[in-house]
Amino acid sequence: MSGPLAGVRVLDMSTVILGPYISQLMGDWGAEVIKVEPPTGDTTRDIGINRTPGMAALFLNLNRNKRSIVLDLAQPAAQEALKKIVKDIDIVVHNFRPRPAAKLGVSYEDLSAINPRLISCTTVGYGSRGRYKDRPAYDDLIQGLGGLAGLIGRYLHDDPKYVPSAVADKTGSLMALSAILAALYQREKTGEGQALEVPMFETLVSFLMAEHLTGPAFEPPLGEAGYVRQLSPNRRPFRTKDGFVCALPYTDRNWRDFFTIAGRPDVADDPLFKDVAARTENTAALYGLLGELMETRTTAEWLADFERLDIPFAPVSSLDDLLADPHLADIEFFKEYDHPTEGRLRMADSPAVFSKATSELQRAAPRLGEHSAEVLREAGYADEDIRKLMEDGVTKGPRA
Amino acid sequence: MSGPLAGVRVLDMSTVILGPYISQLMGDWGAEVIKVEPPTGDTTRDIGINRTPGMAALFLNLNRNKRSIVLDLAQPAAQEALKKIVKDIDIVVHNFRPRPAAKLGVSYEDLSAINPRLISCTTVGYGSRGRYKDRPAYDDLIQGLGGLAGLIGRYLHDDPKYVPSAVADKTGSLMALSAILAALYQREKTGEGQALEVPMFETLVSFLMAEHLTGPAFEPPLGEAGYVRQLSPNRRPFRTKDGFVCALPYTDRNWRDFFTIAGRPDVADDPLFKDVAARTENTAALYGLLGELMETRTTAEWLADFERLDIPFAPVSSLDDLLADPHLADIEFFKEYDHPTEGRLRMADSPAVFSKATSELQRAAPRLGEHSAEVLREAGYADEDIRKLMEDGVTKGPRA
Repeated sequence: MSGPLAGVRVLDMSTVILGPYISQLMGDWGAEVIKVEPPTGDTTRDIGINRTPGMAALFLNLNRNKRSIVLDLAQPAAQEALKKIVKDIDIVVHNFRPRPAAKLGVSYEDLSAINPRLISCTTVGYGSRGRYKDRPAYDDLIQGLGGLAGLIGRYLHDDPKYVPSAVADKTGSLMALSAILAALYQREKTGEGQALEVPMFETLVSFLMAEHLTGPAFEPPLGEAGYVRQLSPNRRPFRTKDGFVCALPYTDRNWRDFFTIAGRPDVADDPLFKDVAARTENTAALYGLLGELMETRTTAEWLADFERLDIPFAPVSSLDDLLADPHLADIEFFKEYDHPTEGRLRMADSPAVFSKATSELQRAAPRLGEHSAEVLREAGYADEDIRKLMEDGVTKGPRA
Repeated sequence: MSGPLAGVRVLDMSTVILGPYISQLMGDWGAEVIKVEPPTGDTTRDIGINRTPGMAALFLNLNRNKRSIVLDLAQPAAQEALKKIVKDIDIVVHNFRPRPAAKLGVSYEDLSAINPRLISCTTVGYGSRGRYKDRPAYDDLIQGLGGLAGLIGRYLHDDPKYVPSAVADKTGSLMALSAILAALYQREKTGEGQALEVPMFETLVSFLMAEHLTGPAFEPPLGEAGYVRQLSPNRRPFRTKDGFVCALPYTDRNWRDFFTIAGRPDVADDPLFKDVAARTENTAALYGLLGELMETRTTAEWLADFERLDIPFAPVSSLDDLLADPHLADIEFFKEYDHPTEGRLRMADSPAVFSKATSELQRAAPRLGEHSAEVLREAGYADEDIRKLMEDGVTKGPRA
């Protein structure tokens, strides 16, 4: 078996997290990915811990299943090389804003003139039809502008805060990946490529509004925006006698069982909580009471009863807990492997399971420019030309 | 132009958020989606605010571009009807755990026997090869078990907390949508359908570990897990004299400009902060100083200088700010439309923009069973048979 995207050729000019996460997933699923890097390399090569310079953990986590070619796109010879490579590419991903893209010769107009079957996806901060189109975009900023930081402040009854994960980047990645694959399907039907634009800001707003567009889903609005249950400060992992538990009695039966084991069977018939409509209406009071009752017993006591009664629950995991999690061990989710230059490494697996395709590690994350010569050769360059491009700093190979 | 998935037929048996978000995006992109509901309807029909019962905002936000058929799958006649419908379906989505799926006759084995080209995606909580496979899964629980709640606690230096958005559900949606479309592409090449399993837990862990698998990316680990910059408590929207601003000086130039306008040009040459490597090493101190300096001026003063100097920034939006955001207004992101029974409504648009395909509202969210008769007729049932199925409670039509 091979990956579902076997035979698909991807050229990724993006950096940092958003684009690299897209192309890594495509690589996990069998696509051949060429990562184009500037001579200084993707920024993430030097962010945080590493064994050797240029091979930091953040880079390793986002760039397996790719080959690396260095191209200094400020030079015309590099733009020319890129165009030769693009002749044989199905999907281009980049995160240049419209003006730099045009300047570097990598706009859809430039590239589709060479390869009309090309699907080109730009992951911008803000859609090019709106007034923020030229503003810089980073995950923190999109979390702020896109409403997530404010929602957290509202939930915490405190100052706005970020989520400690590049949520805006990575929801952008997954939305863009979906859109790219939809366009790839369309190309199978029509034979035509196209340009896609997936903006981080609009993606995050659409993502959040799925639940939070409440009153204003109606015109005139039936109330203010915000999904009450999610914003209730009492919706939280609950403190027990000795730790925390995520407890989520859900059905009428779950709630009755919970109130019974908590020693308050009387509450189950309270009109405030008796069915899903009443509980939704009285979320704050319900979760307040739930929180109080949870403090009366230990984590182990609750977990045993919840498991027995099939009441939805979960422990609260730290990152170390996850690395030792028995379910993740069962499925060998964290995999160790030997990197040719970085030694023994650990990776988190790709989560989707296909019955007739694989999803796996085919190549370890590349050193900067590791495949410059190889990719240029495939694009038709003679060894002598490649040597010249190296001398001129148009491309470069890996450090010896 | 039509959507990129024009001609693709989807049968969605899922409920709540995860599956409905997948199939709504497919519908936005042109697929024909049939939503199969139990006689009581999708739970979200009655969660939160509505104009009429069964048509709550949460349901409206997640179920446009679908038709609704009621099938009481506990009855053999409903299972039979489902199998007739499945003959002409490309993609099935459901979130039954393995045992209920088998009992209801909707396992991949059951359905692929009828339609070998079928792609069937199960969105489970936990992969079926691991020991948590039969545990119930809800967004809160996966946020806890999957490490997100603990990360927030670590970032806030406080108890674990959830993100006020169904992040685990919706990252699951987007990962599953990508995997489904990859399998659809593979089917174009091989002619074969297949079964997919996309677990929420593994998806969230892979999503978070992209950055947080730091020290343990190496074996033996080079340090503890956790991405320092994201977990720094000083990484937050900063308080100004009169509000909050997300400020993210990024390049060496940005930092120099920032320290200069903040009246501290001396700091720019401090070895602690002079380049990206030094700043990454000293994130806590850097963001602490940034926070202090931000308090010295008003939001408007900062925004004007940041815009002028091209220093990345963003305001902190509330949900109401988003509804009135000028960029979102430019692109008509929030669209008003008339629902046949619910009156004037507002929706958040689909964020991806295709140059040769559309993404649009084709059908308003359906009333429960609105298309039961229509879908059964298309599957070959005579009007008389449909009447019988209605009488037996196997299916039902919309309330008059």
